[in-house]
Amino acid sequence: MKFIIQRELLMESIQHVMKAISARTAIPILTGLKIEVKNDGIKLTGSDSDISIESFIPKEENGIVNIDQMEPGSIVVQAKYFPEIVRKLPQKTVEIESDDLLKVTIRSGTAEFHLNGQDADEYPQLPHLQTENSFDLPTDLLKNLIKQTVFAVSTVETRPILTGVNIKIEDGFLYFIATDSHRLASRQIPLESNTQNLTFSNVVIPGKSLNELNKILEETEDPIEISVTENQVLFRTKHLYFLSRLLDGNYPETSRLIPEQSKTILYGQTKELLQSIDRASLLAKESRNNVVRLQTKPSNLVEISSNSPEIGQVVEEVTAKSIEGEELKISFSAKYMMDALKAIENEQVKIEFTGAMRPFIIRPVDNDQILQLILPVRTY
Amino acid sequence: MKFIIQRELLMESIQHVMKAISARTAIPILTGLKIEVKNDGIKLTGSDSDISIESFIPKEENGIVNIDQMEPGSIVVQAKYFPEIVRKLPQKTVEIESDDLLKVTIRSGTAEFHLNGQDADEYPQLPHLQTENSFDLPTDLLKNLIKQTVFAVSTVETRPILTGVNIKIEDGFLYFIATDSHRLASRQIPLESNTQNLTFSNVVIPGKSLNELNKILEETEDPIEISVTENQVLFRTKHLYFLSRLLDGNYPETSRLIPEQSKTILYGQTKELLQSIDRASLLAKESRNNVVRLQTKPSNLVEISSNSPEIGQVVEEVTAKSIEGEELKISFSAKYMMDALKAIENEQVKIEFTGAMRPFIIRPVDNDQILQLILPVRTY
Repeated sequence: MKFIIQRELLMESIQHVMKAISARTAIPILTGLKIEVKNDGIKLTGSDSDISIESFIPKEENGIVNIDQMEPGSIVVQAKYFPEIVRKLPQKTVEIESDDLLKVTIRSGTAEFHLNGQDADEYPQLPHLQTENSFDLPTDLLKNLIKQTVFAVSTVETRPILTGVNIKIEDGFLYFIATDSHRLASRQIPLESNTQNLTFSNVVIPGKSLNELNKILEETEDPIEISVTENQVLFRTKHLYFLSRLLDGNYPETSRLIPEQSKTILYGQTKELLQSIDRASLLAKESRNNVVRLQTKPSNLVEISSNSPEIGQVVEEVTAKSIEGEELKISFSAKYMMDALKAIENEQVKIEFTGAMRPFIIRPVDNDQILQLILPVRTY
Repeated sequence: MKFIIQRELLMESIQHVMKAISARTAIPILTGLKIEVKNDGIKLTGSDSDISIESFIPKEENGIVNIDQMEPGSIVVQAKYFPEIVRKLPQKTVEIESDDLLKVTIRSGTAEFHLNGQDADEYPQLPHLQTENSFDLPTDLLKNLIKQTVFAVSTVETRPILTGVNIKIEDGFLYFIATDSHRLASRQIPLESNTQNLTFSNVVIPGKSLNELNKILEETEDPIEISVTENQVLFRTKHLYFLSRLLDGNYPETSRLIPEQSKTILYGQTKELLQSIDRASLLAKESRNNVVRLQTKPSNLVEISSNSPEIGQVVEEVTAKSIEGEELKISFSAKYMMDALKAIENEQVKIEFTGAMRPFIIRPVDNDQILQLILPVRTY
């Protein structure tokens, strides 16, 4: 195996597949990074058996030659050292070569590294998904779907299914739903008409997988293909192949949690509310599980406050755009409220309450695609 | 006590004094930050009893009014909450007030915080230094003296005196010296003629104090005054007062460690050598205590290499400007060599060796003020 490549190009691919590689894995060869030289380019692979990532660098692209002096073959290099070596090489190009004794030589300028490699035949084969459950999304839209929901997954393993994001397609709509049973985040979007006949419901992707995927994907409108099988999901762009296992179990039916009526509706500035709750939470962080209080006042005023007897109190009045319905005093987690407000893609927010002890809903004013739900905390 | 102040100005002062405040201290009131309103301005104080920092904000400066509605008095606020509160306030100005019950009120816009304060009379008085051992330096020069030496202090407490930097004035020269007994870093500068009669030798400032001081000081040519007493040192700029205890004990005499003759002299590019040793150290980091090897070759070539049987080898040839004297093979800590080369303020470096088992000296080519010394490692 041999090739000469632009160092920057190789580095970018390494960084992608490194997202899947963990130093703690039950299968020792998975601490390595697989390099394959094929006729049409180079493929790097990283995997921790939950997530597998392949990154492809084509030999030529848009008339530019990326890779030179290619001799087919494959090798597994130690992921602990290989990325740092490539990053610190002195020249813009790097030559990588492996021999029959699994020795890997890395050359750049007058620097020469010899690493002990591992046999690529011992590296697990990634499954090749066979499915017709595939659809496309613009990459930046997928990133938004992830960012607006994944923060609400559970971080404790008491109900493992809640550590994932539920993906559904029903009646031509795609849903992303996450809940830790104290709050819920969801986003729905209409799909292209050519995917109208696609339907699935109990697909649950680990939150960790979606966070890693989001780190790798660029903010671009280029399409990403999503394919779902019974126990895996594949995200595929032009040169990237991201495979994740799905979570076992039945995701709870969440639609009945969402109140259909409301008694108090508050319209306000998203950022102003967010910053005010951030300030009120400063004193609440330790003493009372980060709980702040919201109280409606005459003249469209909203009082945000928090009280920690040992430390002090904070109170602030925010002017709402309007307040409709009953007066309200309610307490909730400042962190949940801040997470929810950050997911609202709009300067104006609408909050619908159904009394101090019922879940309430946070939405952008002009958009029903995003819905954030929070259970209040009993303090009165 | 009361005042209204520009929030940015207060924030900057808070950040300075916070460098001295630790959550773990034997004296509970030192977890607080003292605020004093005086006739001419506001003074903030933070201390962990090893380091004390005072920052002064004048009422008026250069015709600009910084502080308004001042009512003299003092209070101690909780350093855990106060900085975050001030940082997140909604308006550009902040009003701070305390009452007889030690309640502190912080107002900005419609946000109002009430914090429980502590009695400023219970805060320890900082000593007022009486000394004639004072001299001035440009602030940026002091920062360089610190950066070029403090990394070489010992990080283990087996010989506590070595965790500090030794400051000496002899014959009109100021010396900064640090050693952990495996390497030594020193810098000397001539002092202004009006301090010619000043002499002291056994002043040892904790490395931690100098690191914190360096973080606060700006890169400016404005003077900083340094005053030394038997057990404390004071650094004073226009609005900052930084007091540190000194270390007890006798600092070892280091001048006899420095070889007076050399057998091999290598002249080279500082950055090229640094990067080459950085690369060679990548494989050495774990297996062999970060040791790399340097070997002179014909035609002014220097071979830098490292070998870790389980991981692999690296070898690189660097072209030296010139090599004088005997052939040489020597091994040393890559970390020590990289630290030393980073302290060389020059593109060209001169390294003087006295055989494979003797300490060697690293200096800028045209400057005897900076001297870095490293003990080699026995590997042959």
